[in-house]
Amino acid sequence: MEDQLKDPSIFIGLQGKNLISFGSGQPDLAPPEQVFKILPKYKQFKYGLIQGQENLREALSKQYEKSNKANFVITNGASEALDLTFRSICQPGDKVLVHKPYYYSYVPLLEKNHLKPVFTETINGKIDFNDFEEKAKGCKAVLINSPSNPTGRIQEISILKKIEKTCAEQDITIVSDEVYKDLIYERKNYMLHGDHVVTINSFSKTFAMCGFRVGYLYSKDKNIVKKTIALKTHTSMNTSIIAQEMAFEATKAPHSYQQEQLTIWKKRRDLIYQGLLDLGLDLWNPEGAFYVLPKVPNPRKTVWDLFKKHKVITYLGDWFGAPERIRLSYALDQEKIEEGLKRIGTYLKA
Amino acid sequence: MEDQLKDPSIFIGLQGKNLISFGSGQPDLAPPEQVFKILPKYKQFKYGLIQGQENLREALSKQYEKSNKANFVITNGASEALDLTFRSICQPGDKVLVHKPYYYSYVPLLEKNHLKPVFTETINGKIDFNDFEEKAKGCKAVLINSPSNPTGRIQEISILKKIEKTCAEQDITIVSDEVYKDLIYERKNYMLHGDHVVTINSFSKTFAMCGFRVGYLYSKDKNIVKKTIALKTHTSMNTSIIAQEMAFEATKAPHSYQQEQLTIWKKRRDLIYQGLLDLGLDLWNPEGAFYVLPKVPNPRKTVWDLFKKHKVITYLGDWFGAPERIRLSYALDQEKIEEGLKRIGTYLKA
Repeated sequence: MEDQLKDPSIFIGLQGKNLISFGSGQPDLAPPEQVFKILPKYKQFKYGLIQGQENLREALSKQYEKSNKANFVITNGASEALDLTFRSICQPGDKVLVHKPYYYSYVPLLEKNHLKPVFTETINGKIDFNDFEEKAKGCKAVLINSPSNPTGRIQEISILKKIEKTCAEQDITIVSDEVYKDLIYERKNYMLHGDHVVTINSFSKTFAMCGFRVGYLYSKDKNIVKKTIALKTHTSMNTSIIAQEMAFEATKAPHSYQQEQLTIWKKRRDLIYQGLLDLGLDLWNPEGAFYVLPKVPNPRKTVWDLFKKHKVITYLGDWFGAPERIRLSYALDQEKIEEGLKRIGTYLKA
Repeated sequence: MEDQLKDPSIFIGLQGKNLISFGSGQPDLAPPEQVFKILPKYKQFKYGLIQGQENLREALSKQYEKSNKANFVITNGASEALDLTFRSICQPGDKVLVHKPYYYSYVPLLEKNHLKPVFTETINGKIDFNDFEEKAKGCKAVLINSPSNPTGRIQEISILKKIEKTCAEQDITIVSDEVYKDLIYERKNYMLHGDHVVTINSFSKTFAMCGFRVGYLYSKDKNIVKKTIALKTHTSMNTSIIAQEMAFEATKAPHSYQQEQLTIWKKRRDLIYQGLLDLGLDLWNPEGAFYVLPKVPNPRKTVWDLFKKHKVITYLGDWFGAPERIRLSYALDQEKIEEGLKRIGTYLKA
């Protein structure tokens, strides 16, 4: 029944020939070819550096202005980077500001670390700076996610600059989850930067390498880098060395790889956005990432019925702090998106 | 200077042609061949199950009596298994009993999780049950490590059974770190078992797969399994799928692989144990794992001088709760062990 819809775990790993899943946010497109090319000769097996392999950190430093390999810590995906960061910079009871709607892991992650999430509402998915500034007071950190999962919205550059300024003035750490930084349709990414910023990133979305689990944190604050390494020494040690070597190969992929992916994502975005508009739904046009978050009547019943009666998986907006909405990932091919839209249409008309 | 000897990180990753390292506890012997054989054809890239790949959990369940794949969670090495376990079963302020000398990560791991380590002394590396029982009162969990890093000692089966009984009676969880379970020279391993036990294990020592980071936790308590999965969903997601596939291949290695390794370890054990005795040092004969923990005069100066003057890395016993001793890992070939012993002899005679 509908009350089984407690979190996305109910849908994770579900497969079926006739199932259309707008659920999990993972690219269906393949990683760059060269990622697999090193495997036949791979023979390493010893512990790697806790901070991460030098070649990978060196390669990353070329992507971030005025950085060097000492500024990076390679992690088991962006999830571990977030976890290590909060455990390193916060003490139990500290407050962390999150903008709504938010990625569903943020709140449990903060709570499991005995931190208090504080929320700022957004307007059409955009941060309302006045509310943000008010709510940020007394917070240890703010967590920014642009482009956002689940809204697909990006934050305005002028607002991001204001956030940099106010956080620097009040000694608040900005934790900037930029895992969708390379999937923006509207403009180049603006990376939040400064001494108070920890950037979280990953190879999962840009290079479709979700399963390998290679993420990282980047910070100019040497103390944060040092603390996260000290913590990781005891909580997981090095990130899998073979996955890191594959990630290193991905950094050498031609720029055309990302361009081609972006073209495909944009086509799908247009398809699903227009398709849902045509069904009469109210939704924001995604500017990045690969999610839409339409309003639907009785979301819990909708998600349940779409799944049970029409074999369509969607996620409940409530998991993302958006109780009037449902989330659809469009990380699936055009044909399936069309078939899924058809089924949703059938359901909504009934 | 000597005061740089704060923790093992000072030595990690150090290499040099003339350097003899008794430091890091990682096998120098290679993993089973078949681990690498799957690589040329490997093409998967999507998220795996948070709990771990089914084939690997299925294979593991065959190694544990009356278990099934639902009892296992695959983790980024034993370190993550320990971290997830303590975060899942404890609340900040809870007490956890640890026997001295202990693996150096235990205390920082507990402290970083806001838990209070409580210590029981051992007699020649063996748990003193009366003291154990007294100190266990009021603890949320006890952490057992047999065979032990850094002592190489195993706990008596009769004592392990008493620990099972008293912990069950007092509703104390036993966290049993058995990563050296397959490296015992004296008898077969006795696995602590029961509804109150969480077994921690890994592919790092048995199969020399340290760098890939595949460990796991095993428990009959479904609630603990569920909680650790829920936590891992937000803190790191699945363990690297390619590393898990390699670990699955390792489970198919012939029994002769482990037998051959054990024969080599035993030879090295005999060599270093007798060698250090011959130098007049007081130490316990290791019954498992690959460490010795001799008493030396002025350990801090000894570790520093051995490193600076003789290019020999040893670890300070103080990091393991054994301030009168130093730890030597004998995970290096016979020739190097002999050369290292010679240098230590030269130093001690001077």
